[in-house]
Amino acid sequence: MLKYGIIGTGAVGGFYGAKLAHAGKDVHFLFHSDYEYVSQHGLQVNSVDGHFLLKPVQLYHQAIDMPKCDVVIVCLKTINNHLLKDILPPLLQPETVVVMLQNGLGMEADLQQVFPDTEIVGGVAVVCISKLKPGLVTHIDYGHLSLGQFSRKNSHTIDAIVSDFRDAGVDAEVVDLAEARWGKLINNIPLNGLTTLFGVTTDQLLAYPSTEKLAYEMMCEVFRAARRVGVTSLADDYVDYIMQRGKDMKPYASSTKIDRDNHRPMELDYMFTRPIVEAQSVGVVMPKCAMLEAELRYIQHLYL
Amino acid sequence: MLKYGIIGTGAVGGFYGAKLAHAGKDVHFLFHSDYEYVSQHGLQVNSVDGHFLLKPVQLYHQAIDMPKCDVVIVCLKTINNHLLKDILPPLLQPETVVVMLQNGLGMEADLQQVFPDTEIVGGVAVVCISKLKPGLVTHIDYGHLSLGQFSRKNSHTIDAIVSDFRDAGVDAEVVDLAEARWGKLINNIPLNGLTTLFGVTTDQLLAYPSTEKLAYEMMCEVFRAARRVGVTSLADDYVDYIMQRGKDMKPYASSTKIDRDNHRPMELDYMFTRPIVEAQSVGVVMPKCAMLEAELRYIQHLYL
Repeated sequence: MLKYGIIGTGAVGGFYGAKLAHAGKDVHFLFHSDYEYVSQHGLQVNSVDGHFLLKPVQLYHQAIDMPKCDVVIVCLKTINNHLLKDILPPLLQPETVVVMLQNGLGMEADLQQVFPDTEIVGGVAVVCISKLKPGLVTHIDYGHLSLGQFSRKNSHTIDAIVSDFRDAGVDAEVVDLAEARWGKLINNIPLNGLTTLFGVTTDQLLAYPSTEKLAYEMMCEVFRAARRVGVTSLADDYVDYIMQRGKDMKPYASSTKIDRDNHRPMELDYMFTRPIVEAQSVGVVMPKCAMLEAELRYIQHLYL
Repeated sequence: MLKYGIIGTGAVGGFYGAKLAHAGKDVHFLFHSDYEYVSQHGLQVNSVDGHFLLKPVQLYHQAIDMPKCDVVIVCLKTINNHLLKDILPPLLQPETVVVMLQNGLGMEADLQQVFPDTEIVGGVAVVCISKLKPGLVTHIDYGHLSLGQFSRKNSHTIDAIVSDFRDAGVDAEVVDLAEARWGKLINNIPLNGLTTLFGVTTDQLLAYPSTEKLAYEMMCEVFRAARRVGVTSLADDYVDYIMQRGKDMKPYASSTKIDRDNHRPMELDYMFTRPIVEAQSVGVVMPKCAMLEAELRYIQHLYL
């Protein structure tokens, strides 16, 4: 049985980690602010797929106390990725696979620089979840999990991870990582960005003509950039699919908007700046995305 | 002596009309909401160039009661220009010159459609003024007034108007209208637009790197559009001059921001949409300005 470590037990880490543990997998959670609460009350998941309480939880307050793991799933906000150089070493053994289950682009490449011998997998979740208070994860919609090799070692661990998630009722699959990351960005840059700028939900944003058009144009901008950096596998009508999904989505605050509302830093570097820079490196300009990035930086400057 | 009518006595109409009247010119004001107050208390101008009270004021509550004028200065918000077809006729005689002292682009062309035989002049004021309560205009900085022929009749009235303004202590001159309008837009689109989006003053906006850069890029976008529609007379360093002026400006809320703060419609059609459309008609795309326009339309949708 694979031994899992979950680093960063917010909404994403809490949800996927609890699903695995609830299915009987061996999961060890690193908790920060919620440590005391969860050690007493357990971790409650209120999900459209059914509620459950995970208790007891194998939880730790410091990484140094955690066991060596076969799989470490990193669910930190990317603004905290600089902490990984200190958090990860106690959990790593030569065959450990680190799964970067985060939003954005380039987190795997940056981590590989710090841990050149570690196998890294990227994870992309399409899921509406939030953690509005300690020990409670609320799962509103979706839940699909895509995992893609970054280090491209000859490893079968990724298949075993997918298998474990499927045992846990999670719709998981192995995908091309670049396609999954850029595909998610087509959603996240316009929708997380614009809903945060205006302080609205996705359905509100897309119900008004000027912002519906703007979101669509920005999605096309990201789509074209994806094509030019080599992601040729996205379907021609992918943008239309993402638009429709956004319109059909239940009223939902993106993680970026929640960060803003709580006066926390937003994940601007990996979710906005990095894609723009990577596109620029192959000669693609993303004027609207760049403008949104500049606007969000100023918004953050105003509230932080 | 020229007989002046002032249509729309807000900050701009109040300031320039009162300057003329205070200098002994024959000025007739149409007042809307402030009629009762000003008829009792007069019109107070608190100006960096000196305070004065204009009393009595030749004021009217309805255009139908006003005399025929030689010069009608229209200082309405452009969102109310559709009212001019009813307001103007009582004031017009064959030689009347209508001065459109407003922000934006295309107001003269639209009015000329309604009054094909009337001589129309465009007016561009660079002035920091506000009317924060009835009967009081506060003049913070600047004051330059540019007048340019639109109808291009063989008329010398424009020179006489400039002469009257100079008598009244206003730094006025005859200019090329397209140059003046586009030159003002280089300032207004980025600075009115972005300060309104973020709810900040110009100096604040330009003190932060990402928004300073964005404002500069947008100014360049408007500058390039101006060149392409035929305004070749703007100096190469005009954008740098506007940027520096914005940074040096005393903390000041743009008229667009004041509209937003007071939950009134913004002048989006003539100040944002029309320049984008005119640029498009000669094949010039203004992606950042178009994005800002879309954002402002949504902001207005949210607060109106």
